[in-house]
Amino acid sequence: MAFTLTRYPIIQAPMAGGATTPELVAAVSNAGGLGSLAGVLLPPDQLAEEIRRIRARTARPFNVNLFVLKPVQATPEDLRAAMGLLEPIRAELGLFQANVPSKFSQDFAAQLEVLMEEKPPVVSFHFDVLSAQVVERLQQAGCKVIGTATNVAEAIAWEQVGADYVCAQGAEAGGHRGTFIGPFEHAMTGTLALLPQVVDAVKIPVIAAGGIMDGRGIAAALLLGAVAVQMGTAFLTCPESGIHPLYKQALLQAKGDPTVVTRSFSGRPARGLRNTFIERMQPYEAQVPPYPIQNALTAEIRQAAAKAGRIEYMSLWAGQAASLCRSLPAAELIKTLVEETQQSLQQVWGSQVWPA
Amino acid sequence: MAFTLTRYPIIQAPMAGGATTPELVAAVSNAGGLGSLAGVLLPPDQLAEEIRRIRARTARPFNVNLFVLKPVQATPEDLRAAMGLLEPIRAELGLFQANVPSKFSQDFAAQLEVLMEEKPPVVSFHFDVLSAQVVERLQQAGCKVIGTATNVAEAIAWEQVGADYVCAQGAEAGGHRGTFIGPFEHAMTGTLALLPQVVDAVKIPVIAAGGIMDGRGIAAALLLGAVAVQMGTAFLTCPESGIHPLYKQALLQAKGDPTVVTRSFSGRPARGLRNTFIERMQPYEAQVPPYPIQNALTAEIRQAAAKAGRIEYMSLWAGQAASLCRSLPAAELIKTLVEETQQSLQQVWGSQVWPA
Repeated sequence: MAFTLTRYPIIQAPMAGGATTPELVAAVSNAGGLGSLAGVLLPPDQLAEEIRRIRARTARPFNVNLFVLKPVQATPEDLRAAMGLLEPIRAELGLFQANVPSKFSQDFAAQLEVLMEEKPPVVSFHFDVLSAQVVERLQQAGCKVIGTATNVAEAIAWEQVGADYVCAQGAEAGGHRGTFIGPFEHAMTGTLALLPQVVDAVKIPVIAAGGIMDGRGIAAALLLGAVAVQMGTAFLTCPESGIHPLYKQALLQAKGDPTVVTRSFSGRPARGLRNTFIERMQPYEAQVPPYPIQNALTAEIRQAAAKAGRIEYMSLWAGQAASLCRSLPAAELIKTLVEETQQSLQQVWGSQVWPA
Repeated sequence: MAFTLTRYPIIQAPMAGGATTPELVAAVSNAGGLGSLAGVLLPPDQLAEEIRRIRARTARPFNVNLFVLKPVQATPEDLRAAMGLLEPIRAELGLFQANVPSKFSQDFAAQLEVLMEEKPPVVSFHFDVLSAQVVERLQQAGCKVIGTATNVAEAIAWEQVGADYVCAQGAEAGGHRGTFIGPFEHAMTGTLALLPQVVDAVKIPVIAAGGIMDGRGIAAALLLGAVAVQMGTAFLTCPESGIHPLYKQALLQAKGDPTVVTRSFSGRPARGLRNTFIERMQPYEAQVPPYPIQNALTAEIRQAAAKAGRIEYMSLWAGQAASLCRSLPAAELIKTLVEETQQSLQQVWGSQVWPA
């Protein structure tokens, strides 16, 4: 099975929180990969505007990602309790006047309508599966649909609603776990173990995500049966990525595996660099309200921390191979990845480790 | 870097608890892989005897593995408390008379002396690093030394004491985590992310372990920079493997990722199939005494469960890709793995997914 969306089977992962600027998305697409815009946090009009800004910069295919969200409710008591947990950290950042948001996320249905109207060539989804009807509407609008799965059951669910591709998210992946069938702890399978299981279970082509940082990882994923890879952390340190300079620096200085999975920032398990916020919230991890409530409640903290350059309270999503980050413009990174992958394939194929 | 110990760069992992019979070890070695005996639970004289039984069956290189253990102590109160946690499960198995062992493990120093005398071609170690002196003595006896690492720091530690190879154990791996530098939770890195980091950090050749079940996994590991792979779960379902028939059956029927990491059986984190024992002990996980104490305290339960065919109380170590298990004689499995790996390499190399 071939990946026909782009010249190279390399997808720059959607990453919310400012990373996936139109400049990054377009640079990746122009270089022959598939750039992805993280749309989850954008109001519908801004989502449409960002899509147009990408279109102004590239004529190549690109992807827009949304989180599949259902409306949530929280009682004033729940919110007070949740804000109470954050109070000591807010105080340290000088946030004394608590502004409890009345709205916890953007309106997913309205965001979906933007996709139907703007018709990006590729749309991808996280956190849950869409209905077959919605998938069909997107496809009729001309969008290819990618669903995210963290286990075999979820991959089958996406196949059943008619997705064009399924992205298998291994436990190494930075950012939010996409698990929607079963508890997330039961879907922390490493990419190397998850990928062949998903490939065997579905007929639609599989995209590999989690821990892939260079041509070695790409070559490995292709051999495991993926038609393409999705790489997030590797693109965070591109100059086109919009993340905080201190966050970029931390990634470039990372040693070993500096990550942990936490619910503390958003209410949903996500992998990022260990820092003070995560450590201080760790004892209360089970009490934190679900996504997107906690995400809304910590927004002020994350903004204030970014403004003050207090990296210890920022969310620093990253995968388990963050120490392999490098600082290359997106186009150069794509070019390097392609060369490395070819070298990797050649090296083993031509070597003596595997006698005939 | 080439793997010169055996014809094929495939190591059958040492697995304690009866899996690695001399028949399995010899069959793997005779087929061109590296068979491994798990020596940890064997008294010195029996360890020597098993090595001789392997030698009687193969003239090819094989490996003997030990856990690097320091003497441990437990107060009678600690032991009573730990036995108390196990009481309800013991009662269900009809184990009313508690026999608290006075010795929790074999004498590691005496086991090491057996290796020096018997001189197996390869020796491998788990749980800690050896001193440079001991590594040198083993090498002078003619043994190649493999150390296990779960993070970059541990790989460097093994390189510094002069190990010939380091085995990078990804989070997918079945059985015990080898972590000895830092908490184990910080060393749960997936193979795809861990392997390139270790390969970049050390000059000695790296063996990949964790989640590898077939030729796709082997090809992927080689592309990630490993010179060889170590596969455990894949060999558990060989007819030569000495595990309980119900355990074999559970592996062959596994779907998705049915595993979890637990301290409950042995006192040290290890990955196995989720069952009643693990679920019932889960609330007390933090109270369980360290390895090898808990391992000794649960021995009677595991034996009684095996005898009674009560799989819900057996330890069923397995990796995250257990659902890819198949029932082939070891020699046939090696042959199949070799063919699959070659096919995997050929498929991608010859395909159109990667334009020139």
